[in-house]
Amino acid sequence: MATLVKKFGGSSVATPEKMHGIVDRILRERQPDDRIVLVVSAMGDHTDDLLTLAAKVNPEMPKRELDMLLATGEQVSIALMASAFCAKGQPAVSFTGAQAGIKTNDKHSKASILDVQACQVKQALDEGKIVIVAGFQGITDLGQITTLGRGGSDTTAVAIAAGLKADMCDIYTDVDGVYTADPRIVPGAQKLDEITFVEMLELARLGAGVMQPRAVEYGEHNGVAIHVRSTFNDVPGTIIREEYTVQEKNFVIRGVAHDTNVAKIAVRGVSDEPGIAYKIFSALAEANIDVDMIVQSASATDHKNDILFTVTQTDMVEAMSVIESLKETMHFDKADIEVNVAKVSIVGAGMLGSPGIAAGMFGALAKANVNIDVISTSEISVSCLVPEKDVKTAVNAIHEHFFPEGAK
Amino acid sequence: MATLVKKFGGSSVATPEKMHGIVDRILRERQPDDRIVLVVSAMGDHTDDLLTLAAKVNPEMPKRELDMLLATGEQVSIALMASAFCAKGQPAVSFTGAQAGIKTNDKHSKASILDVQACQVKQALDEGKIVIVAGFQGITDLGQITTLGRGGSDTTAVAIAAGLKADMCDIYTDVDGVYTADPRIVPGAQKLDEITFVEMLELARLGAGVMQPRAVEYGEHNGVAIHVRSTFNDVPGTIIREEYTVQEKNFVIRGVAHDTNVAKIAVRGVSDEPGIAYKIFSALAEANIDVDMIVQSASATDHKNDILFTVTQTDMVEAMSVIESLKETMHFDKADIEVNVAKVSIVGAGMLGSPGIAAGMFGALAKANVNIDVISTSEISVSCLVPEKDVKTAVNAIHEHFFPEGAK
Repeated sequence: MATLVKKFGGSSVATPEKMHGIVDRILRERQPDDRIVLVVSAMGDHTDDLLTLAAKVNPEMPKRELDMLLATGEQVSIALMASAFCAKGQPAVSFTGAQAGIKTNDKHSKASILDVQACQVKQALDEGKIVIVAGFQGITDLGQITTLGRGGSDTTAVAIAAGLKADMCDIYTDVDGVYTADPRIVPGAQKLDEITFVEMLELARLGAGVMQPRAVEYGEHNGVAIHVRSTFNDVPGTIIREEYTVQEKNFVIRGVAHDTNVAKIAVRGVSDEPGIAYKIFSALAEANIDVDMIVQSASATDHKNDILFTVTQTDMVEAMSVIESLKETMHFDKADIEVNVAKVSIVGAGMLGSPGIAAGMFGALAKANVNIDVISTSEISVSCLVPEKDVKTAVNAIHEHFFPEGAK
Repeated sequence: MATLVKKFGGSSVATPEKMHGIVDRILRERQPDDRIVLVVSAMGDHTDDLLTLAAKVNPEMPKRELDMLLATGEQVSIALMASAFCAKGQPAVSFTGAQAGIKTNDKHSKASILDVQACQVKQALDEGKIVIVAGFQGITDLGQITTLGRGGSDTTAVAIAAGLKADMCDIYTDVDGVYTADPRIVPGAQKLDEITFVEMLELARLGAGVMQPRAVEYGEHNGVAIHVRSTFNDVPGTIIREEYTVQEKNFVIRGVAHDTNVAKIAVRGVSDEPGIAYKIFSALAEANIDVDMIVQSASATDHKNDILFTVTQTDMVEAMSVIESLKETMHFDKADIEVNVAKVSIVGAGMLGSPGIAAGMFGALAKANVNIDVISTSEISVSCLVPEKDVKTAVNAIHEHFFPEGAK
């Protein structure tokens, strides 16, 4: 007897026909004693339709009311999915986020799950029912309806799986797993059978967008194995878990990520005195701007430094105005911004004990004639800032080096 | 400082423009310290659209899931209404039936309100907010979402008004009050300023369909005055309350009702022995069939009776099959059915102390040459079964007798 949580996104439940397709698949695949929970999103474009309607009433809808509105999208799809199972003679019951015990904080439109009290879900499973839970939504201690923000249904699924100590949480998506690089850029990219939580999180942080980091983090903290797989076929996808169960051939590097949503800001001619870096980066933190790579280069002659850092292009205008505002209290020559850059990264927990990995990456880039601007490293990744025009060349060169054809 | 509950139906909130129209009206009409709760239905045809979608997935959707689905209709309109108030700078907050503390039994699709725990509503009013409550829905002790069935939003409004000890519950409708007869049939019908709960319930029972009886009953049991008024203008409508505050000219009869959804069943040649009526009407009650008028006529010669009764045309086929099934255990000559009949009634609490009222009705019908088939009376009403073709003549003749032009 296995307890399985399966999440289907909005495009998978967009029509009554697609809903019946899921029902048929679940009933065909399940073992007799399986306890099954489905987490579903709103049907197709339903959420967008609600947003359009909301904007007509008030372009600045209060977030609490927006959550009240958007939560109806999933409530419609769970009721219909439960009804679709019943139409095939399979007892099923739907639960809103509130009924499924998804307790969140009160940050409307991007609430975090604090706890899952899945007693109602457990009872329904005990009664032999398939349980359909509304993704993307929860409830505060005071009974306010919240939504979890982008990728929220994935997080709901992992949280329910944790609450039930489920054997597996299947996330059905339009890709069939996690690849060693983006297959749209690297034709020879290979699907991974397994990847660890930390590697997956590092890949997501560095631009590989298969899963929202929050769902992966929730899985890591609660030990829930996540199976990322295709909606369109039954082929196994990639399992994200704590540790590998099988030793694969190439184990050191697990993936090559890239990210073009990067801007490089340089603060030039900063006085070489203590506390300057603190001033800059605490001011940016206060403005809620995430800084990624940081490099400080000292000039040997005039006791002045250049401080370079990267932010997302979304944040760059605000970051520049924070820097300009510092000019009154600290001295620097000028600040400039560069957007024609991209970050390419390699990720692998195994690189810790394998010297020469970074050098291999730099060599591959040199051989491909790609110039490296900034380098940063973490325990399980190495990233290089390269010219944006070279990103495809760079990713392919690095992938070819670490994943020569046929290897995995 | 007055506490006011105002209910708007689905056609009043069908579009963002209509929602803003309600907002403008409320803000224009209210006194500075008024505490205002709005109860709203689902937008326009939204409920019908959901039903169409539900039927595509499963023509026999389980009632629990249907309630889960339909409850989203009101949840959409409350969120948008709250947002519409906020757009005009008026703080507002929406509550689902569950959040507003509408506790019901678990009869899905036609649940009854057991209790209203309006603490969240009160708190929001204390904070100076306008509160928008989802009509038509509630929650059971076990957290199941229920709907109240036809006219449910009216009941929600009256229940919330009772829970808040509101000064008035305004029900905005497409008619501008309760009339002495249906204005579509009687051109001279007059709008009543006031009517008592018992008279309103009797009128509703006898076919006058302005308000659902359940909402009126809830008002009666909890002493909530209900103001039935027009969505389209500011003219005062009819207030339904416990007792009259003003003595009106004609106080004995308050209205003439009619009902064409009537079938007359005759069981002929029944043996004249004890227990026969009990056999017939207990069998009908067991089949959950409401019987309205009952007449038993004894034959002087052969110790046989005819038993006549009326049911709604909706129930008549089932009623006939119940009667046929009794043929095995009791003797009667034959049973026949007549559908070309209609019931006309007069209602007024004052008739108890006014002799000659029934005679006045019979006289008016005789003068109009309308034949009376069956007569039945209650403490505050007299009903006559007449040929269906004569219903308009009958209603106008009776109305002319009790409400001669200019009188009220």
